[in-house]
Amino acid sequence: MKKSLVAAAACAAAAGACAQSSSVQLFGVLDAAVTYTTGSGYGSTHKWQLTNSGNTFSRLGFRGSEDLGGGLAASFWLEAGLQNDNGTGFNSNTNNQASGAAGPGLITFNRRSTVSFSGGFGELRLGRDYTPTFWNTALYDPFGTGGGIGANQLYFSGLGGLTAPTGTRASNSIGYFLPPNLGGFYGQVMVAMGENDNRSVLPGTLLSNKDDGDYAGIRVGYLSGPFNVTLATGKTRYATGDLRVSNLGASYVFESLMSLKLMGEVYSESLGAVDGKGALLGFILPVGVGEIKASYARYKREPIGNVPEPTTSKLALGYVYNLSKRTALYGTLAYLRNRNGATQALAGSITTPNGSSKGTEFGMRHTF
Amino acid sequence: MKKSLVAAAACAAAAGACAQSSSVQLFGVLDAAVTYTTGSGYGSTHKWQLTNSGNTFSRLGFRGSEDLGGGLAASFWLEAGLQNDNGTGFNSNTNNQASGAAGPGLITFNRRSTVSFSGGFGELRLGRDYTPTFWNTALYDPFGTGGGIGANQLYFSGLGGLTAPTGTRASNSIGYFLPPNLGGFYGQVMVAMGENDNRSVLPGTLLSNKDDGDYAGIRVGYLSGPFNVTLATGKTRYATGDLRVSNLGASYVFESLMSLKLMGEVYSESLGAVDGKGALLGFILPVGVGEIKASYARYKREPIGNVPEPTTSKLALGYVYNLSKRTALYGTLAYLRNRNGATQALAGSITTPNGSSKGTEFGMRHTF
Amino acid sequence: MKKSLVAAAACAAAAGACAQSSSVQLFGVLDAAVTYTTGSGYGSTHKWQLTNSGNTFSRLGFRGSEDLGGGLAASFWLEAGLQNDNGTGFNSNTNNQASGAAGPGLITFNRRSTVSFSGGFGELRLGRDYTPTFWNTALYDPFGTGGGIGANQLYFSGLGGLTAPTGTRASNSIGYFLPPNLGGFYGQVMVAMGENDNRSVLPGTLLSNKDDGDYAGIRVGYLSGPFNVTLATGKTRYATGDLRVSNLGASYVFESLMSLKLMGEVYSESLGAVDGKGALLGFILPVGVGEIKASYARYKREPIGNVPEPTTSKLALGYVYNLSKRTALYGTLAYLRNRNGATQALAGSITTPNGSSKGTEFGMRHTF
Repeated sequence: MKKSLVAAAACAAAAGACAQSSSVQLFGVLDAAVTYTTGSGYGSTHKWQLTNSGNTFSRLGFRGSEDLGGGLAASFWLEAGLQNDNGTGFNSNTNNQASGAAGPGLITFNRRSTVSFSGGFGELRLGRDYTPTFWNTALYDPFGTGGGIGANQLYFSGLGGLTAPTGTRASNSIGYFLPPNLGGFYGQVMVAMGENDNRSVLPGTLLSNKDDGDYAGIRVGYLSGPFNVTLATGKTRYATGDLRVSNLGASYVFESLMSLKLMGEVYSESLGAVDGKGALLGFILPVGVGEIKASYARYKREPIGNVPEPTTSKLALGYVYNLSKRTALYGTLAYLRNRNGATQALAGSITTPNGSSKGTEFGMRHTF
Repeated sequence: MKKSLVAAAACAAAAGACAQSSSVQLFGVLDAAVTYTTGSGYGSTHKWQLTNSGNTFSRLGFRGSEDLGGGLAASFWLEAGLQNDNGTGFNSNTNNQASGAAGPGLITFNRRSTVSFSGGFGELRLGRDYTPTFWNTALYDPFGTGGGIGANQLYFSGLGGLTAPTGTRASNSIGYFLPPNLGGFYGQVMVAMGENDNRSVLPGTLLSNKDDGDYAGIRVGYLSGPFNVTLATGKTRYATGDLRVSNLGASYVFESLMSLKLMGEVYSESLGAVDGKGALLGFILPVGVGEIKASYARYKREPIGNVPEPTTSKLALGYVYNLSKRTALYGTLAYLRNRNGATQALAGSITTPNGSSKGTEFGMRHTF
Repeated sequence: MKKSLVAAAACAAAAGACAQSSSVQLFGVLDAAVTYTTGSGYGSTHKWQLTNSGNTFSRLGFRGSEDLGGGLAASFWLEAGLQNDNGTGFNSNTNNQASGAAGPGLITFNRRSTVSFSGGFGELRLGRDYTPTFWNTALYDPFGTGGGIGANQLYFSGLGGLTAPTGTRASNSIGYFLPPNLGGFYGQVMVAMGENDNRSVLPGTLLSNKDDGDYAGIRVGYLSGPFNVTLATGKTRYATGDLRVSNLGASYVFESLMSLKLMGEVYSESLGAVDGKGALLGFILPVGVGEIKASYARYKREPIGNVPEPTTSKLALGYVYNLSKRTALYGTLAYLRNRNGATQALAGSITTPNGSSKGTEFGMRHTF
């Protein structure tokens, strides 16, 4: 029941005709896990937590679609991220800049808040939505980019990942998606506005930041049978140095090898003069009603000059036991290693420069 | 499908009997537009934005009603305003005073949060609701009071409009509405409490503000065929000077003139010793599945003594193309002019004293 | 219609089979009252308010359950408290410590945010939930612990009540509930994590607070016909002194005495070296479609040494008139008295040391 329907007015009055009427869907995910993470070395920390989103990001949403005739449709989508371990949510970012983030814990439709007009020409989408450059990092990692300890380390280490205002989504965006019937080709473009006016300057400077938070990106792909490949690139403008992110992801399902799905991503980014690079390799192996999955990611910061290049690598191993299509129990192990002064650690722990971090997670995910 | 129903428990168990059962409705509007506004003169600004609510205010709500028998009913209404361009909402105001507003962006049931008891006697309504003095400004303007560039300029310029804590709604209110069967007469009264205690003083002074935020207002009207007229007046008490708002709105539908609807409002207000006055004239002309609409508004601040009277006028012209009853595309042009030192500008731009401001907007509105 | 169903997708497509499908429920309560409270003595205050939750706490929630077969089920529950007098909500507390509370007025799923796995073994519940030590205070008081003037004074006076981060609920909790078929015996245990890491110290000190916010509690009871008794005890760890709460509640329904329900609670607590004790006695007497209820509570702070023991007692008397199963009108009178320097007062008023406080409340509660 991924899509629980709220029956339309016309439907309630004449229940037999429900299937044809317009509808609003209430949907969501609650995912909670007990997690233990630890760092290494003097001054490192460890912690027990009840965490959220170890398998799939927790959320509550409302969406619907109206058939306008002639193949046209109007749709809306409102989706709020949830921290169900404590009942709070996630704030949004209103202008794709650091200044647009408010305090933590608000429940907002931070994940998606769009209205769409679609038809044979594709889909035009307005509002807050995922940036094209985000998707490959989420889709070509068996652990995705959720709150779990196994999630894509490129996303957590990167300049253009979790902490970047446009690393996941952009507000004030206009998106266009190709229609689905192009022989396996698919694609999308997005422009999003930072909404600074033409005389805006960085606080305390004379430096114009009128274009700060303006995002432009594109994602194109090809899906054919067991094979899927996607390329994305995008730029967010900042007076202090633009953020550029490019990545390429691919996956292949080996039907003859127990339907083993192999996947990988290469990732490149720069924020002003600082560069970063990474790559990820992973697989999902269905086993009965469950699946085994694993990933290895490696990310390297490449500053200019002869300074060290902090490097982080992570290995994650997981098992998901599906109690039904909607509900699963899961367990994950993760091991993270730093080099050249890097200090990344699994969420909840602190590690020393060049230290390591380990984590264990056991949880339950329920979709509605 | 303005009123999408959430079928009741009894209804799901016996689907054929749905129509008679109680119900909860999930409803809303998502409206997004690309907007460009500009000011005039040295130091003025212009801006591109993705805005919300250009045609109808974006919202998400839950409401329901229970038939208590004997013509009595109990109802509830929870409605949250949405900034769907970035996934956030609007904070409410808890005490009808400046001190009751929290930070921006929270999603709250700021638009309406009421529980009602109704019957042949009318309706008694408790909670946060629209003030009687707000309605004429919204209903007798073809562009309403939403977020669009065409919206009622009296509302944006006025002392008792957008920025006044009771300019749109009041918290802690008790409202009474006449029943609908009074031969065309209708009306409502509201009292709302600022909830200061009897020893409350203005911070930093000895001035008692125990009545601050107390609102009382009344609205009466008469609707007969093509003709509708409504008068409203109200007062909010503040130790620094009461806010008084009065307005009169009227509309007439000329069936023989392509169903042209002509409408207008006169508006008068004072905050302490400062007075303001305004008037608006507008029309809506149905053309096929669309409509053409226009308005002209003029607002003049009238301070005491021989000082200038800042004056702002706005002309707005719009076209709405209805793709269905629920979905429309729309475009709006607006031109605003200041006199006697006024500096009003269309949202997103800044203009010089006595300068002008222009705006263009193209958007989509979807109701569910 | 306590449980309004959102029909499942499968249900809308084949309405006759609705009853068997999975479901999401949208539910809630809106309760509003006009309340007047007053203190006594020089400097005391009185206030008129529109309040919420005088009879039942106002809320909006989403919940659902999935049948996994074999007697197993997965469930979720998201429930937000509402201040419907002004359209805002209640913030949650993310870490069971003072540092985890954010600003007021946010709408969050502060009341409950859980995902559950249940079966013949009972229920395992993860997330934010009520602490076992809370329930007796709510259930063995005819006025409960809501926002009304009659609500349990032990809860408002106590160290482990309304203002304690774990006084009502805990975030990051793991709860286990016994199955319902144990011959009248029932019970639950909860552990919840403060989620400080192992090197965490109290700000400005060297004092480790690594266990702060860790909660453990248990509640066991026995229900047999008209008789119900429940014992609960729990501890929350704080570096500055643990909070311990224990209470015992019991009720008996005298069928032969017009179904009079008598109930009571004894309550004991300590926060570091400071102790508190209290007791409550109350009844509910059904009269036609309504009910009369009353309670008397007495709470005494017991600090160490020869200092005074501030004592507060409250008498509450109420009448509830049920318009239907979902909707009621109600009125409450409350009288509160302080001794030995106590200064408790009914919400909205301030009273002098050893002063009294009186309140009157008339409201409407609607459940959906």
